[in-house]
Amino acid sequence: MEHLDDQQIKEDDRNYVLHSWSKQKDVHPKIIKKAQGIFFWDETGKRFYDMCSQLVYLNVGHNHPKLMEAFKHIGEIPLSAPGFATESKAELAHKIIEVAPKNMAKVFFANGGADSNDHAVKIARMYSGRYKIFSRYRSYHGATFGAGNLSGENRRFTVEPGLPGFIKFETPYLYRESIAFDSEEAAAAFYLDRLNSQILYEGPESIAAIFMESIPGSNGVLIPPKGYMEGVRELCTKYGILMICDEVMAGFGRTGKMFAVEHFGIEPDMMTFAKGVTCGYSPLGGVIVSKQIADYFDDHVLMTGLTYSGHTVSTQIGCATLDVYKEEHLIDHAAAMGDVLAERLDKLKRFASVGEVRCIGLFAAVELVKDKETKEPLIAYGMDFGRDKVGLMKKFVGMLMAQGFYTYSHESSVMIAPPLIITEAEINEAMDRFEAALTQFEKEVLFADSKLMTP
Amino acid sequence: MEHLDDQQIKEDDRNYVLHSWSKQKDVHPKIIKKAQGIFFWDETGKRFYDMCSQLVYLNVGHNHPKLMEAFKHIGEIPLSAPGFATESKAELAHKIIEVAPKNMAKVFFANGGADSNDHAVKIARMYSGRYKIFSRYRSYHGATFGAGNLSGENRRFTVEPGLPGFIKFETPYLYRESIAFDSEEAAAAFYLDRLNSQILYEGPESIAAIFMESIPGSNGVLIPPKGYMEGVRELCTKYGILMICDEVMAGFGRTGKMFAVEHFGIEPDMMTFAKGVTCGYSPLGGVIVSKQIADYFDDHVLMTGLTYSGHTVSTQIGCATLDVYKEEHLIDHAAAMGDVLAERLDKLKRFASVGEVRCIGLFAAVELVKDKETKEPLIAYGMDFGRDKVGLMKKFVGMLMAQGFYTYSHESSVMIAPPLIITEAEINEAMDRFEAALTQFEKEVLFADSKLMTP
Ligand SMILES: Cc1ncc(COP(=O)(O)O)c(C=O)c1O
Ligand SMILES: Cc1ncc(COP(=O)(O)O)c(C=O)c1O
Repeated sequence: MEHLDDQQIKEDDRNYVLHSWSKQKDVHPKIIKKAQGIFFWDETGKRFYDMCSQLVYLNVGHNHPKLMEAFKHIGEIPLSAPGFATESKAELAHKIIEVAPKNMAKVFFANGGADSNDHAVKIARMYSGRYKIFSRYRSYHGATFGAGNLSGENRRFTVEPGLPGFIKFETPYLYRESIAFDSEEAAAAFYLDRLNSQILYEGPESIAAIFMESIPGSNGVLIPPKGYMEGVRELCTKYGILMICDEVMAGFGRTGKMFAVEHFGIEPDMMTFAKGVTCGYSPLGGVIVSKQIADYFDDHVLMTGLTYSGHTVSTQIGCATLDVYKEEHLIDHAAAMGDVLAERLDKLKRFASVGEVRCIGLFAAVELVKDKETKEPLIAYGMDFGRDKVGLMKKFVGMLMAQGFYTYSHESSVMIAPPLIITEAEINEAMDRFEAALTQFEKEVLFADSKLMTP
Repeated sequence: MEHLDDQQIKEDDRNYVLHSWSKQKDVHPKIIKKAQGIFFWDETGKRFYDMCSQLVYLNVGHNHPKLMEAFKHIGEIPLSAPGFATESKAELAHKIIEVAPKNMAKVFFANGGADSNDHAVKIARMYSGRYKIFSRYRSYHGATFGAGNLSGENRRFTVEPGLPGFIKFETPYLYRESIAFDSEEAAAAFYLDRLNSQILYEGPESIAAIFMESIPGSNGVLIPPKGYMEGVRELCTKYGILMICDEVMAGFGRTGKMFAVEHFGIEPDMMTFAKGVTCGYSPLGGVIVSKQIADYFDDHVLMTGLTYSGHTVSTQIGCATLDVYKEEHLIDHAAAMGDVLAERLDKLKRFASVGEVRCIGLFAAVELVKDKETKEPLIAYGMDFGRDKVGLMKKFVGMLMAQGFYTYSHESSVMIAPPLIITEAEINEAMDRFEAALTQFEKEVLFADSKLMTP
C-alpha cells in the first residue's frame, strides 16, 4: 500500500475510528513508526521500552524475524473453513497439547480472549448439564457478553443486566484484606472456606464451572496465596465442578512457566488462551479441554462455533510462535529475567508511595498508595476510565512515558510485563527510568505540597 | 514450515482439534490441497466449485494474488495495540465509511461476526440508556453470549438461560406463512403491524435497538417483502429505537450492492460486518455507527473494547480487500452474475422437490420439500445438527459434493453463494451439476419407492 503521512493517519483515525474504553475527545494517539524487540519509536522519533508488550501479548517482542518470515509463506496452505482439516490447525493443536498440562487433550480455536471464554462457558454447560458459573471479583475475562459477565470489575457493567446463573466470589487480595494472616496458607484456608460455603449456598449440583484467571492480570497481578489454587482444584473435584483457568494473559511464558497453572501443580479441566499463542501477530484464541471433556463430544454435538475457528493464517502464525518459544528457550529466559525484575521491584519498596510490588516471571504490578500506613490508593475503586478527576495515576503514567517507559495502569497498579526476550541490562535500564519517574512523581505531584519524603 | 502428509494432518486433526457444531466422531474432514478462484481441490485431487465461498466469506475467491501480495508486505506497519493510531486501521475505517450509507461516521473494529454483534448491543445500550433488544426468530448472529442471544434459531439454546431484555419477533417468511397475501406490500404491512404491537407491549421507551440481518442468510436467504425494511426503519425512527443491521454475511457485495440495506434505500443507525471485509484472509469484524452515535462517544466513555480492535495485520488485509472490490468492479459483477444465477434457479422450479428458490445478487437458497402441495420440508424445524436421523438433506448435500458442487445446507435450504468473481460459464457449469445431483436425489432417494416424478 502507499503510505499516508502521519497527519493524515491521525486525521483519519480521529474522524473514522472508535477507540475502546475512552471518550473519543480524550484520545490523542501516538503512531508507532518503527519497532524492534522490546522497543518502539513514535512519530517524533522518541524511543520507548515497551514494558507492557502492547497489551501483554507481544511476548516475542516487536517485529520478530521468524514471524515476519512466516507471513511470507502465507498462501502455501489454502484458506479453509473450520469443517476442513488444515495442516496448521492440526499442527498447532498438537503443539499446544504437547505443552499443556498432561490431562489436556483437544483444542477448540476462537479469535481472541473474550470469545474463547464465551465458548468455554458454553462447553462447560454442555458437558456438565449444569448452568451456574462462578467467577471472581477483581478479574477481567473480556468484553463479549459471556466474558463480560464473567469479569469482576466495572467493565462488566455494560453487559448488565447480567446473565442468569453467573455468580461472583472474591479474589484473594491480601494487601487490601482487613484481616492479617499468619501465613499465606492461613489466608488460602480462609478464602477456601468462604468459597466452600458459597458453593454450598448456591447448590453444588447446579454449578457447572469455577472460572478464574490463573493469576489475575489486568486487576493488578494478584498472585494467589500458597495452597489456594490447589484448594480450589480440590473443591472442584469434590463437587464435580469444572475448574476453568483463563490463561489469556498469564499463559505462554508470561509467568516463567508455559502456563501459570504449572506454578500450582494443578490440572484444570479447561484453559482458555489467546494473546501469547500468536503474540498478537494474528488474532487467535481458544479453549483447551481435558480428555474427559474431549471424549464427551465424540458422541455429543459440540454446539458452538465460529467462522474463523482454527483460522488458516492465524494457526500458521501460532505454529511459528510456538517454535520461537522453544528455539529461543523463552520460557526459561522469562523465569530468569523474572528474578532480575523481582530484585529491582523489591528495591522500589523504599519509595513512600509504593504500597506493594507483585511479581511472578515477567508479570508484575507496582501498587501505589498515598500513604503507606493507611494504604489509601491513588484512585478509589471503580474510578478508572476517566471517572477520576484528580488524575494521579494518569500523571504518573505520563511521567513514565516521558522517561520512555511505556505501560498502562489499572486502579492504582502499574503493569510491568515486557516482552520475554528482554535482557538483564534492559530491565535495569527500564527500571532506572521507572525510578526516575517515580521520584519525580512523588516530588512534583504526590507529596508536592505536604510532607516531602526522603527515599 | 515443513509440511505434514495428509494422513498425519488428519490424525492430528482427529486427535487434537474440536470441530464446531458436530459430534466429533462424525467429523471426517477433507483437506484443501490447492485452491484458486472459485475452485478448490481435495486430497484425492477432486475439484470442487466452491459454491458457498467456504462460509460465505471468500467473496474475492481463493488465493487472490492481490491479497497474497498483501501478506508479503506485513511488517511495514508495526503491530500496534488499539490505543495507537495505525495507518491501516485509519485507512480501512475511512474506506468503509466511504462505501457505507451516508449517515455512517465511524467504525469500531472487532475480530469476527459474533463479537461485533456483542459490541453493537453494548453500544446501543450505552447510547440509548435503554436495555431491551429486539431481534428475530430465524436469524443467526453468532455464538458468543450476546450474538447467541440475538440469534433466533436453535444454535442459541446453549447460551440460555438467556440475557434479560432480549426479545424475539418474527422474520417474514412468506413461503411458510399460513396466510396468503395479495402482494408483498400487504405482507409487509401485516408483519409491521405485528411488530408495532409488540413494541407497544414491551414499552418503546425501554427498547434500545431492533437488530436484524438485512437479509437473513444462514436461515435460508429470506428476502424481506417490499416495504418491510423501510417500515421497520419508520417504526424505529418513530419510537427512538436504534435500527441495527447485521451485514456480516450480506455485506460487501454479496447481494449485488456493497451493503444489502441499499436494496431498501434505508439508513440503519448501526451496521455490523465481518466476513467480506477481509474475505476471511485475516479475522476481522466491526461495527459501523452513525454520526449521531459517534458524536455521543466524544463526551461519553465507549465502555467496550478488545485486545485486537483494529488489528494491524487484519486491517491491512482489509484495505487490500476493499481495493480488490473496487478495482475489479466486483459489486457490479456480482449484480450481473446474480441475474444469471437467478435465471438458472428459476428453472429449478420444474423439480418436484423444489419448494422455493430465493436469490438476490449472488446470495441464494433452494428450499426443498417432500411435496410441493403440502410444502412438507425435508427436515422438520430444529432437526439440524445431527438430530435428524433420516438424513435426507445430508444425502442431497453428499450428492452435490459428488458432483463437485461444494456447499452446505440449513434446515431444508441449500445455500448457493459462490465467490463474486464467478463467471457466467462457471455458474452454468455449477448449476448443471446441481441439477444432475437433484435429479439423482429425487430418483434414488426422495421418490425412490413412491411416485416417480417427471420434470
Ligand atoms: C485474562 C484475560 N482474559 C481475557 C481477556 C480478553 O481478551 P481479548 O481482549 O482478546 O478479548 C483479557 C484481555 O486483556 C485478559 O487479560
Ligand atoms: C449474519 C451473521 N452474523 C454473524 C455471524 C457470526 O459470525 P462469526 O462466525 O464470524 O462469529 C454470522 C456467521 O455466519 C452471520 O451469518
